[in-house]
Amino acid sequence: MKRITILINCNDSKGIIASVTNFVSQQSGNIVYIDQYVDREEEMFFMRLECEFSVEVFNVEVFKNMFNEVIANKFEMNWQLHDGDSKPKMAVFVSKYSHCLYDILSRYNAGELDVEIPLIISNHPDLENIAKSFNIPYYCIKVTKDTKVEAENEQLRLLKEYNVDFIVLARYMQILSSKLIAEYPDHIINIHHSFLPAFPGAKPYHSAYKRGVKIIGATSHYVTEDLDEGPIIEQDITRVSHTHTIKDFILKGRDLEKIVLSRAIKLHTQRKVMVHNNKTVVFT
Amino acid sequence: MKRITILINCNDSKGIIASVTNFVSQQSGNIVYIDQYVDREEEMFFMRLECEFSVEVFNVEVFKNMFNEVIANKFEMNWQLHDGDSKPKMAVFVSKYSHCLYDILSRYNAGELDVEIPLIISNHPDLENIAKSFNIPYYCIKVTKDTKVEAENEQLRLLKEYNVDFIVLARYMQILSSKLIAEYPDHIINIHHSFLPAFPGAKPYHSAYKRGVKIIGATSHYVTEDLDEGPIIEQDITRVSHTHTIKDFILKGRDLEKIVLSRAIKLHTQRKVMVHNNKTVVFT
Amino acid sequence: MKRITILINCNDSKGIIASVTNFVSQQSGNIVYIDQYVDREEEMFFMRLECEFSVEVFNVEVFKNMFNEVIANKFEMNWQLHDGDSKPKMAVFVSKYSHCLYDILSRYNAGELDVEIPLIISNHPDLENIAKSFNIPYYCIKVTKDTKVEAENEQLRLLKEYNVDFIVLARYMQILSSKLIAEYPDHIINIHHSFLPAFPGAKPYHSAYKRGVKIIGATSHYVTEDLDEGPIIEQDITRVSHTHTIKDFILKGRDLEKIVLSRAIKLHTQRKVMVHNNKTVVFT
Amino acid sequence: MKRITILINCNDSKGIIASVTNFVSQQSGNIVYIDQYVDREEEMFFMRLECEFSVEVFNVEVFKNMFNEVIANKFEMNWQLHDGDSKPKMAVFVSKYSHCLYDILSRYNAGELDVEIPLIISNHPDLENIAKSFNIPYYCIKVTKDTKVEAENEQLRLLKEYNVDFIVLARYMQILSSKLIAEYPDHIINIHHSFLPAFPGAKPYHSAYKRGVKIIGATSHYVTEDLDEGPIIEQDITRVSHTHTIKDFILKGRDLEKIVLSRAIKLHTQRKVMVHNNKTVVFT
Repeated sequence: MKRITILINCNDSKGIIASVTNFVSQQSGNIVYIDQYVDREEEMFFMRLECEFSVEVFNVEVFKNMFNEVIANKFEMNWQLHDGDSKPKMAVFVSKYSHCLYDILSRYNAGELDVEIPLIISNHPDLENIAKSFNIPYYCIKVTKDTKVEAENEQLRLLKEYNVDFIVLARYMQILSSKLIAEYPDHIINIHHSFLPAFPGAKPYHSAYKRGVKIIGATSHYVTEDLDEGPIIEQDITRVSHTHTIKDFILKGRDLEKIVLSRAIKLHTQRKVMVHNNKTVVFT
Repeated sequence: MKRITILINCNDSKGIIASVTNFVSQQSGNIVYIDQYVDREEEMFFMRLECEFSVEVFNVEVFKNMFNEVIANKFEMNWQLHDGDSKPKMAVFVSKYSHCLYDILSRYNAGELDVEIPLIISNHPDLENIAKSFNIPYYCIKVTKDTKVEAENEQLRLLKEYNVDFIVLARYMQILSSKLIAEYPDHIINIHHSFLPAFPGAKPYHSAYKRGVKIIGATSHYVTEDLDEGPIIEQDITRVSHTHTIKDFILKGRDLEKIVLSRAIKLHTQRKVMVHNNKTVVFT
Repeated sequence: MKRITILINCNDSKGIIASVTNFVSQQSGNIVYIDQYVDREEEMFFMRLECEFSVEVFNVEVFKNMFNEVIANKFEMNWQLHDGDSKPKMAVFVSKYSHCLYDILSRYNAGELDVEIPLIISNHPDLENIAKSFNIPYYCIKVTKDTKVEAENEQLRLLKEYNVDFIVLARYMQILSSKLIAEYPDHIINIHHSFLPAFPGAKPYHSAYKRGVKIIGATSHYVTEDLDEGPIIEQDITRVSHTHTIKDFILKGRDLEKIVLSRAIKLHTQRKVMVHNNKTVVFT
Repeated sequence: MKRITILINCNDSKGIIASVTNFVSQQSGNIVYIDQYVDREEEMFFMRLECEFSVEVFNVEVFKNMFNEVIANKFEMNWQLHDGDSKPKMAVFVSKYSHCLYDILSRYNAGELDVEIPLIISNHPDLENIAKSFNIPYYCIKVTKDTKVEAENEQLRLLKEYNVDFIVLARYMQILSSKLIAEYPDHIINIHHSFLPAFPGAKPYHSAYKRGVKIIGATSHYVTEDLDEGPIIEQDITRVSHTHTIKDFILKGRDLEKIVLSRAIKLHTQRKVMVHNNKTVVFT
């Protein structure tokens, strides 16, 4: 059996679901999963389908062309088809903190993440040993005010060389340039160590401590030009009290960060996240 | 616009989704919500559809007959059609604890629950004043070992008289007889004050205290003949510590009980719960 | 047995705990609970003690004077002694939403809250019937731009008349004046329907929806002159998804609001909250 | 400054707190943290103190003797004094699952755990490479029905050789013998992959799936002779739905397991856990 995933996004109108499911059926496909959502305010339609076809008769390119002609054009759809056969290539950017990197790599090693990790990029040499112990190439590209443009060009070159599909910022402590962001729209996943929109920017645990909150959080989101304001993929929280110091906040936060980030990575690789209007639709 | 909800359950096979959506489309209906689930172990298919039809042309009875002939028979479906126009009638059974009753009635009053509450039945007179202040008939039917059969017959008589659709046991401290349960299969919602399957039966907070658990819970489930073993609709938990006494467990538990029960009531009235093999499918 | 609660706050120095516990012991008291906290940044010491004395020999006034002379003056303490015999008087302010009021009054009725509620004040007549059904005086004092000063004077008059100890704003939709706030420092408890500091001010559920957060919250805090910036007593959260409308946010939020507010009320009445530097110490 | 931690447990009686704090004060110590708890049912008193002494004058052995004579004997206390200077030695037992081991070792590497890990013991060779990459000796001791006694003797020999203080079973899939358990009472920490007391024993995720629960959990507890019935140190939960397969339960559970286990390890190493009557007192 060949399994494909189709993501659809268009203005809402009558008959979309019937048309799509009917088309799949006519192509001898079987729908094994369907989820759909309509944003009533925006009158936008979103759908995620998983379909199975018998390998002998199914041809992806033919299917794509037919779908475009018969369905997508009619409803003016944005749509993507993902073929379950190939794993997306994920680059990991890190700085000095190891907890998210360890978490990602140990999941990777245990077969939990349906990705390939062709390289790790860092602005510091500190985590090279970890990369080594997992046999993943580690590129240390220093970033200073003066070398930022150059450094980013080198990053881009590597991302192209390794055919990277999407990027994970695993507590990478540099702000990406518009150029890099523009190359990977909705394909750069960041973990921010606060419950956004509370405490954007630098040192959120310090701010949370100062404000005396009783709960701290972490937020994974797609990176956009507006710092910490991209579409939120996943959030989670943990309780704190007056007895916790800033150091305690940081330690407790680490556990949040790695779990929230790994959930976001999984949702992204399973093609369960769609972006519209700076918000996400996250299918179950 | 006329809105209907269709729930479908049958053995899984190819083409069900396409057939159903196509049928709705041919009847000039528009699908506004679709959710589906396949239990791969049991090869069982579950679907929930919300469809809109223009009032002028739509006739429920005609649609039902057509659906039966064209679709349901073909796939040997169990199916139900719910008409959004009529609110289900919910009976509330209580004993002496007021917290769940207050919670239900204050939500009811605020228009949160899409039900009618034609009557409250209790084995004690204690909560009559609350019922009165919400203008709902309150029937006190004492239950003793000797009068149990009689009492239940009286309950059944009232349930029939008021055309009750489903029953909520809001901390009702009596075990229902098989006869009453058989009259309302998957239509009696209980709240049990533990995280089932831990601590079934009487005095779960005492058992939880004795075991030294760090988290307590509450579970809402459909009542079956096996005490506290019916299909679970919703659960939630709260943290406790060694500093909490049994009385604290009980007070903290109350907040859980009322919220978990009200969530279960909402899911049930929105026709989002399907039961199979003593488990629930709960659509979002 | 006579039980008293002592709250202490002063600059940290050596020997405070030993001095206090020794003093209580010398007065033939038994310490049944002690909790203490030192803010290392501010070098501030906080302590909460519950002590028991035999009724025959204990005299509160004598104890207070002794404590002041022997202990409090020495360490330059801010301190309070609470006598378990008298219940604090709590005024509830409401507008049109009933959920928090119902929740408070049903807990009050069930004996869960260790307070007296001598009156309810509202700027709308809507909830009068609820107050009536719980036999609590309800004062409707309209507040408009022009009558604000007058209205608040009337509120203050009532608060004095009823000897109110502290105020709960149970979704009261007016901003209090500095004058009223100054009369009850750290004695006015508000519930804000967001996870502060995210979404302060008006319509937080709308803002949360617009931002596409995956978790919403509620925050109970003491009211200060800075809107929604007072010391946080308690917070809690619940998950939301893209499928939830603003109306869903509001309904889900209600359950948070009432639980977070009631927890804050309980902590306050149990004298477990101390305020310093716009933050709270919340003893367990 | 020299910091020590004192744990006290005895029958409750008047004046314990005052006596202890006074004693510390007389020895020129400063109490920087005090927490206490009385089990009213059992009339048992528990206390945890952190005190600071100036290094020049403080002698641990002298202090211990004095404390014993003046305080401990009088109140018939069980008590322990922990010297902050030495880190406890923790042995990790594993089988084939790597997630808990990775989690422990990456925290260890990041300086999060205040322990030494002198060795890892396993009944399988699978995780040796991980141990190696963290430079920790790995002993593979096969356990079969026939070799169980021998294998455990070898384990005991190693534990003695390395002066191990306590043992962590990081998803170790063998049941320990009474002999080994007796050597480390309340010093063997296990992680069980269910919300105990629900689903003790083997394959709890399978049982949870079958029962159709809406929440799964993990429990860390001290090992006693009764399987999965030892004193609970920490628990946590995560939500599941009908859409999750057993495999999903297992993956989601892993995140719980590692976090719950690491929290238990931290509490244990910070001497915050006291055991009585098969329950724990966990100080904050």
